[in-house]
Amino acid sequence: MRNLNADNITDAVIEQFSGCEDERLKSVLNSLVSHLHAFLRDVKPSEREWTEAIDFLTRTGQMCDDKRQEFILLSDTLGVTMLVDAINHQTSDPQITESTVLGPFYVADPPEAGQGESIDWGVEGEPFFVEGRVHDEQGEPLANVVMDVWQSDSEGFYDVQKELDSASLRARFKTDAQGRYAFWTVTPSPYPIPTDGPVGKMLELTGRHPYRPAHVHFMLMAEGYETLVTQIFAENDPYLDSDAVFGVKDSLVRDYALKPPGTAPDHHTMQTPYRYLKYDFGLKAS
Amino acid sequence: MRNLNADNITDAVIEQFSGCEDERLKSVLNSLVSHLHAFLRDVKPSEREWTEAIDFLTRTGQMCDDKRQEFILLSDTLGVTMLVDAINHQTSDPQITESTVLGPFYVADPPEAGQGESIDWGVEGEPFFVEGRVHDEQGEPLANVVMDVWQSDSEGFYDVQKELDSASLRARFKTDAQGRYAFWTVTPSPYPIPTDGPVGKMLELTGRHPYRPAHVHFMLMAEGYETLVTQIFAENDPYLDSDAVFGVKDSLVRDYALKPPGTAPDHHTMQTPYRYLKYDFGLKAS
Repeated sequence: MRNLNADNITDAVIEQFSGCEDERLKSVLNSLVSHLHAFLRDVKPSEREWTEAIDFLTRTGQMCDDKRQEFILLSDTLGVTMLVDAINHQTSDPQITESTVLGPFYVADPPEAGQGESIDWGVEGEPFFVEGRVHDEQGEPLANVVMDVWQSDSEGFYDVQKELDSASLRARFKTDAQGRYAFWTVTPSPYPIPTDGPVGKMLELTGRHPYRPAHVHFMLMAEGYETLVTQIFAENDPYLDSDAVFGVKDSLVRDYALKPPGTAPDHHTMQTPYRYLKYDFGLKAS
Repeated sequence: MRNLNADNITDAVIEQFSGCEDERLKSVLNSLVSHLHAFLRDVKPSEREWTEAIDFLTRTGQMCDDKRQEFILLSDTLGVTMLVDAINHQTSDPQITESTVLGPFYVADPPEAGQGESIDWGVEGEPFFVEGRVHDEQGEPLANVVMDVWQSDSEGFYDVQKELDSASLRARFKTDAQGRYAFWTVTPSPYPIPTDGPVGKMLELTGRHPYRPAHVHFMLMAEGYETLVTQIFAENDPYLDSDAVFGVKDSLVRDYALKPPGTAPDHHTMQTPYRYLKYDFGLKAS
């Protein structure tokens, strides 16, 4: 294993992994080394470019903390996240809700909220009522499904980006005995993914815009069912066909219907116009 | 650009880079996306594996500081660094010294030292005298070449790993009018690359040892010549054929000759045995 050159180094590296007892890990690393080396042979990086790549990856890691995940952003903007999603969640059953990217702003164990409550928690914006049901592949209602909801405010910012003392526009619900959920919030807006890190710089240098169409995130968890990570997008959003993270699916796009003042579907009396979204989620048995 | 699946997402991502005005950057990113997606289609990662990969990369970035570069270690241990080296420094001219990996322990602007001085600076170990000359492609001596030298101690640790107040076993020399250099140091030993980070864990999980054969690092810089980054390895080292970073070339392996007490080549009187290495470096015009 000396005098390695561009022709024989790939085999030499793979040979060094031959003693790996974890067969899955071995095959992943063998494939990684093959494809990574093929990429390098293809682009023939200069040493300066290699240094820049090391620096880019280092800064990407160092941009991460408990409220920011720059490597997920990188995965998202290179289409990796959606490819992994497609590999794991290909479905042609219209009863099953399609999945899409988790995104970098999910926070585990959000505050719990009750059926029909508002999660605006002091954030101003256009009132938005969201409701629906959760069902199985046969359309039967699923009770006690844990549903985490999170979204940006009307300026496009998540609570974790605003250094708030407590969560907002983020909560955990449970479906009732009829599989129903309902909550009040504010209408989210399209927004740029964070551009102050290496990924933002990459988008800028390549002439890509950083915007995502307006959406609400959902994560649904129930015993015996695959966890569903998805988003419901607003119809007519200008970024539906150029989402910076490649996450839009037609089945996830709905009218955030503008309603005049009056009695809302939950019998609240609204003095102002508000928006209304009804969406039913279908979970797949695991 | 909606409803992307495993078959069409790669083209969609590449299309998003089509507006990039930097042609080099565009072609590198197109190639990266193609090879990265091919890797993912090949191994079909689960979402848990994707999460583990994001976490691995994040921890690798966060392990880096001004004295530790874990992404360089990752590049080294996957054979990437040596492949980039091979792409940039293929030479068949025996007058030109071959290059090898920089490694993670280079520190820019080391303390200057004079011809023949010791750089052990208080570190204990077997005395080691190193000398030689630097020449061009025609064998003509090169004066005033800046030569940075760095190496591990006899336990395998670099100064930056030991939290010392000042540099040791690390210095900058200049060749004299005849192209000569000379210094005293201590004999380096084989050593494991740092194993307390994500890269060490990767080696452990795959059954790879982390050792490098004993070596002294050199970086030679002279106007009008390509900077040479290389290492001179000790003959008969047990790790020459399994270097954890794939860096060994036969032309860089020499006898660190054991000499009895007596008069050293620089006329020093040695009371104890010592080692001696003579190596001439050839630089390539840039």
